[in-house]
Amino acid sequence: MTSSAPAPSATAAATAPTRERLLDAAAGLFYREGVNIGIEALCRAAGVSKRSMYQLFTSKDDVLAASLDRAGSGYLSGLLPAPDADLPPRDRIMHVFKQLESLSASPDYLGCPFLATAFELKDSEHPASVVARRYKDALTDFFRDEARRGGAHDPDLLAHQLTVVFDGSSARAMAQARSLGGLATATATALLDAAGVS
Amino acid sequence: MTSSAPAPSATAAATAPTRERLLDAAAGLFYREGVNIGIEALCRAAGVSKRSMYQLFTSKDDVLAASLDRAGSGYLSGLLPAPDADLPPRDRIMHVFKQLESLSASPDYLGCPFLATAFELKDSEHPASVVARRYKDALTDFFRDEARRGGAHDPDLLAHQLTVVFDGSSARAMAQARSLGGLATATATALLDAAGVS
Repeated sequence: MTSSAPAPSATAAATAPTRERLLDAAAGLFYREGVNIGIEALCRAAGVSKRSMYQLFTSKDDVLAASLDRAGSGYLSGLLPAPDADLPPRDRIMHVFKQLESLSASPDYLGCPFLATAFELKDSEHPASVVARRYKDALTDFFRDEARRGGAHDPDLLAHQLTVVFDGSSARAMAQARSLGGLATATATALLDAAGVS
Repeated sequence: MTSSAPAPSATAAATAPTRERLLDAAAGLFYREGVNIGIEALCRAAGVSKRSMYQLFTSKDDVLAASLDRAGSGYLSGLLPAPDADLPPRDRIMHVFKQLESLSASPDYLGCPFLATAFELKDSEHPASVVARRYKDALTDFFRDEARRGGAHDPDLLAHQLTVVFDGSSARAMAQARSLGGLATATATALLDAAGVS
């Protein structure tokens, strides 16, 4: 079947590794140091020339949005249960909060990367703020689907409440620089109980 | 009784207006533009020379911490009910969330200034991060006192849960760039009910 597999174009093959290396280095640097990191530091960390960077991206804003999108996808799938995990809706929701509890115990955790980016940019129309919002909405969508399957009185309200608890917990872990110690799971549990998800 | 009132020292009288003007301008600028604003822009906005600034503060970090402290005090007292307001504990707690709902409806609201500063600095030992943590703890202390007076099953847990809801709601209003539309009050209500605060 190799003959039917589309071969990557010469351009794609040549640029993909550079692009990925740049985005991975950028995501780590933006998260640890903030969105005001300069182009020079970015290129140095990625081992990429400025010329190469500008061949792939039109601006630093463009790099920031693309790197958040790439890193965000991994962050979100690390929080969610496996799609084929055979768990009741309540356990699928609680999985997310247990993952957040684990993350918060790491000294490297500086809060939800989407919130961090949005707080730093202070511009809801920036392309990276739009990416951040899309991922926050994806988490709310996950909660809403599970809340509905779990028989919540008001799945949409519960989904937004759980997102608020997720964000507030992640912010707390960052601002206090310490583990949540069960606060996120206890708060999610109280709201699931109140919403009738057993 | 004027003879018994201590007169401000000549130094305090001369420096106080400059100091306050600088801190007020700095607080607004840091909140709107971020903590990476340069000294020049800061002094220009305040109408203060760099020389005057360095006579009052040892560094920009020092200005940032002092300006957050000054603005934070007003922000927190704007959220809390008047100390002499004759309200039941539950209403005193809900007052905070109603204030947050109002704040979130303003296009100028960029989230809780303490969270914003902590997210931007990414350094829990920075003097401004320490100020931010002190104010977050003051809000939790307020919730704990009221939760205790209101007969909560576990006042300390409820106080932390309410702080998480406050922070998550403020982050949501910022990231979504729109009013909370009752989400903060609905979530606080659910947790107060669950905790047995009637």
